Amino acid sequence: MPDILHKIGIKSSQADVYKALTAIERLSGWWTTTTEGESKIGGVLRFRFGNGGFDMKVLQLDPAGRVLWQVIDGPEEWIGTTISFDFDQRGDWTIVLFKHAGWKEPVEFMHHCSTKWAVFLLSLKSLLETGGGAPWPNEIKIDSWE
Amino acid sequence: MPDILHKIGIKSSQADVYKALTAIERLSGWWTTTTEGESKIGGVLRFRFGNGGFDMKVLQLDPAGRVLWQVIDGPEEWIGTTISFDFDQRGDWTIVLFKHAGWKEPVEFMHHCSTKWAVFLLSLKSLLETGGGAPWPNEIKIDSWE
Repeated sequence: MPDILHKIGIKSSQADVYKALTAIERLSGWWTTTTEGESKIGGVLRFRFGNGGFDMKVLQLDPAGRVLWQVIDGPEEWIGTTISFDFDQRGDWTIVLFKHAGWKEPVEFMHHCSTKWAVFLLSLKSLLETGGGAPWPNEIKIDSWE
Repeated sequence: MPDILHKIGIKSSQADVYKALTAIERLSGWWTTTTEGESKIGGVLRFRFGNGGFDMKVLQLDPAGRVLWQVIDGPEEWIGTTISFDFDQRGDWTIVLFKHAGWKEPVEFMHHCSTKWAVFLLSLKSLLETGGGAPWPNEIKIDSWE
């Protein structure tokens, strides 16, 4: 099954990256301003983008290098897919390897989401390096669906 | 084998998108300023980024919706892979579906290239919508490899 892969290097500590991937107020700073829920193992995070959005069950929370969510509600193509962030500090940088796995088919929506994840990961980098991210609804628009 | 997929929607005609994917001076405006070669079937395009770069053999050139290249020289992981742009006009927009196919393994370099392709496709969009792209060496940097 095809996966969406990305990499982003952030001039930041691993601890700060972990916080940006787990604390509700930090997630709100780079992905979507309307983020709610419980960021604990078995908890559910609710990311909203206007009318639509995604509910994620938190499966792994490891400050040493991994956060893993599974989509339990949202667009049909997303349900059951997993989203992982593997990260490690290398000198002044923390390197994040991102994977959105479990897509059934490489549909047009998957192409869209791949580019969009890149946009949001650049927002994550900006949040940590400059103090300001560009979460929805202020993120870079990529096509006519937005 | 895993593929890199992206989608970008451009407020531009299909003819202008085709030109941006085929004319040397237009390719220089969004991917890398140092682009040379012959953009014809069987011709070779040479994209340079400082010391490194990619040589692509042009396999398909269809103004009605498809450009296809095959990598014949460059980093080992890229050799033999193919890069395709499928595009079609929908109202005011031309939608581009991008695929970099034939990677052997989902290595860290593939993660890097996926995010980097998103950056360059945003540059392509900007070139066509605003008149100015951000080709190498002025593109957005994503990690410690740059």
